[in-house]
Amino acid sequence: MRNIVLTISYDGTNYHGWQCQPDVLTIQEIFNNSLKKILNHATTIYAGGRTDAGVHAMGQVINFHTERTIELRSLIQGLNSILPRDIRVKHAREEDITFHARYSARSKTYVYCILNTPYNSPFLNSYVWHIHYQLNTSAMDDAAKVIVGEHDFSAFKKKDEVYKSNVREVFRANVKRRGNLIYFVTEAKGFLRYMVRNITGTLVLIGSGKITVEEFIKILNSKDRENAGPTAPARGLFLRKIKY
Amino acid sequence: MRNIVLTISYDGTNYHGWQCQPDVLTIQEIFNNSLKKILNHATTIYAGGRTDAGVHAMGQVINFHTERTIELRSLIQGLNSILPRDIRVKHAREEDITFHARYSARSKTYVYCILNTPYNSPFLNSYVWHIHYQLNTSAMDDAAKVIVGEHDFSAFKKKDEVYKSNVREVFRANVKRRGNLIYFVTEAKGFLRYMVRNITGTLVLIGSGKITVEEFIKILNSKDRENAGPTAPARGLFLRKIKY
Repeated sequence: MRNIVLTISYDGTNYHGWQCQPDVLTIQEIFNNSLKKILNHATTIYAGGRTDAGVHAMGQVINFHTERTIELRSLIQGLNSILPRDIRVKHAREEDITFHARYSARSKTYVYCILNTPYNSPFLNSYVWHIHYQLNTSAMDDAAKVIVGEHDFSAFKKKDEVYKSNVREVFRANVKRRGNLIYFVTEAKGFLRYMVRNITGTLVLIGSGKITVEEFIKILNSKDRENAGPTAPARGLFLRKIKY
Repeated sequence: MRNIVLTISYDGTNYHGWQCQPDVLTIQEIFNNSLKKILNHATTIYAGGRTDAGVHAMGQVINFHTERTIELRSLIQGLNSILPRDIRVKHAREEDITFHARYSARSKTYVYCILNTPYNSPFLNSYVWHIHYQLNTSAMDDAAKVIVGEHDFSAFKKKDEVYKSNVREVFRANVKRRGNLIYFVTEAKGFLRYMVRNITGTLVLIGSGKITVEEFIKILNSKDRENAGPTAPARGLFLRKIKY
């Protein structure tokens, strides 16, 4: 039995996220159907990170098992010829049967993109949160650094989402400006649902001068979602990379 | 009477080009309707450069006349609130009544974008020509330099398109690689229809080793469209800037 691992990239704009759900179109469903056509058998696909509706992926990692002898190169080409243009297979490799895209992951890196210009761009609209007033990225970067380390992130989780523990360890978090684009990059073993988008929404309050870094620390420590900022729109979020 | 000049940007994917045509949706038509709602009167809009179906613009310039006293800032904001998200007004200014977006133009700069990777990107798909085999950009740049100066560009014009003269003066032409992206940038007082796309299609023949720079010179000198390469797809072409 082969354990095949694919790195895939997708534009999440037209999908209700990665994971199969009844009555709506998801990337997993599209992928299942395409893979079945190539392999001539159904298979379970495991994904490294779940992406919510409208969220994009540059480096989603998935794996599945098959006994087919198809070459990796032919598998990539076959899938890319069947898949819609907003979903692409970038790389394929084989791993030991114990490898699991989700459970073997050491870290996931997400990038949130903000376009900070007076007027939005017709080209970037689906890939950024457009903010027309000037943001102070230095203050945002100071606040981002606060989340590095092990913390209870209840203040930034999706309301009503229940976990065994709301503690997560963040390895990296920073905010950088490159011209008119602002990137919030963060890496962790795992994230709570909406965590990156809720942190981004709160970082924007800092960038606009509405709250201070000290207040950001208080919000984190309060463990209360009601105290944090708004959830940043899905369209600015990218699953950048999964490390194993 | 005021002569108002706007710099606009648009994603041409969903339009049949700039210029109004019966039965199809064009950017000019959308713009006419939006402007009429703001000004409360119909007006003629002059554009600096015509863009064909599917071609994008980062710096299209248009002008129109009005007696309305609306502030430029309010005009931009009003238009951007009415226009679809793939058309944006970036800048507004007033000029002398003699200014004409097309006739006053000193030069137009176009950029053609090629994505040179084994597999296409789901994010760039609408904005590039994806070429999966490795292109020799140094040879392409050598050939691009050949078109600089005054030449009869009949070999690169749209078939059956008739002009008083097929001679155009090209001020600048070069091919640069930035990672996986290849940019062909060219500036001229004016271009023949399809000229940039037909030159791009022929430059790609050079980049792939199918023809030499010497053969490219022969194609230009032959003044015969039959000798040149294919027309590059519209989606990789951007009207970058118009100088006055």
